[in-house]
Amino acid sequence: MASGLFVTLEGGEGSGKSTLARALDEALSAAGHSVVMTREPGGTPGAEQIRQLLVCGDASRWSAKTEALLFYAARTDHVEKVIRPAIEAGQIVICDRFSDSTMAYQGAAGGVPLDELKQLHALVLGDFKPDLTLLIDLDPDAGLARTQERDGSEARFESKALAFHKRLRAAYKELSASEPDRFCVLDGELPPDELAEIAISAIERTLAE
Amino acid sequence: MASGLFVTLEGGEGSGKSTLARALDEALSAAGHSVVMTREPGGTPGAEQIRQLLVCGDASRWSAKTEALLFYAARTDHVEKVIRPAIEAGQIVICDRFSDSTMAYQGAAGGVPLDELKQLHALVLGDFKPDLTLLIDLDPDAGLARTQERDGSEARFESKALAFHKRLRAAYKELSASEPDRFCVLDGELPPDELAEIAISAIERTLAE
Repeated sequence: MASGLFVTLEGGEGSGKSTLARALDEALSAAGHSVVMTREPGGTPGAEQIRQLLVCGDASRWSAKTEALLFYAARTDHVEKVIRPAIEAGQIVICDRFSDSTMAYQGAAGGVPLDELKQLHALVLGDFKPDLTLLIDLDPDAGLARTQERDGSEARFESKALAFHKRLRAAYKELSASEPDRFCVLDGELPPDELAEIAISAIERTLAE
Repeated sequence: MASGLFVTLEGGEGSGKSTLARALDEALSAAGHSVVMTREPGGTPGAEQIRQLLVCGDASRWSAKTEALLFYAARTDHVEKVIRPAIEAGQIVICDRFSDSTMAYQGAAGGVPLDELKQLHALVLGDFKPDLTLLIDLDPDAGLARTQERDGSEARFESKALAFHKRLRAAYKELSASEPDRFCVLDGELPPDELAEIAISAIERTLAE
């Protein structure tokens, strides 16, 4: 069986990742692909329990370094039990957030040296990384305004100061500039169906390679 | 104020660490020392929540690599919030298990290469380590027999096969042989008061150095 594809969605709070994920699932499934939709932190029963420690409670509950270790614990479980087996079975895995989130949130925006996070990634997952990363770029003011409409039970990261979210956007821009072949940067101001159309073209190009 | 002391207790299941910890607390406090008793995984509210993920549930719930990351997440929180501040305040910290447990349980007995765990430690905690480690050495058959008398709510590691516990004992022996100045190996067959007496002498020697 053909090897599958690993696609990740990245962006700040309220950038539209979940909406895009649903649209991709529908369109790719309709086109006959076997799609696995998943998310981080989470994606396995154990990782979802770690998620609760990360997304709930006070914004200063954990240091950025402790957060990074919790994210990598959840990620290891997720990669071992869901992501790798699905890719090896020839499926398309669409994951809402992955290691670039750790680089952006705990690294550039949270203060853990990026070099240490890259060492952690290499130590835990070697050279495993997405085939394609769809980054939705959006002004944090606009994104945070959208999140006001959500229920607030998982708002720990949203509750961080605006300056944090501005650093986050800049961090994502740097990450995408450093790996232009892996990243496809999408304009978060576009209507959802246009965003999805561009994303599907990018996935089809990557599949064809 | 004088810098404090960091003492860790290590050993297999049922080796007598908790009993020794209580005896050390009593004796050192009676001698006028300011003592902080703590344990791993745990020692902070956040790390105690991570503890629940580690010590409960099925023995195969996490891979050894995921476990190691969860232990280091809990440890980072514990070192930042409790252990380092207490040492800097001149207190004696007695900690029931620390990084040697990760090297023994997830490393030699669990199958994660020891070299990777040492890299993880260096990445997260640099060269931070105990001033003195009291290792209680006991045949795993005898130790596991003792744990039968406990309530079973935190029995995830105890429930692993005897072969695991035998590898664990061998791993501790190797760790202590590689750092003879830091380790003091105690015979777990000794009566508790004799064990405590030898341990207190070792702590006093380390304090005097």
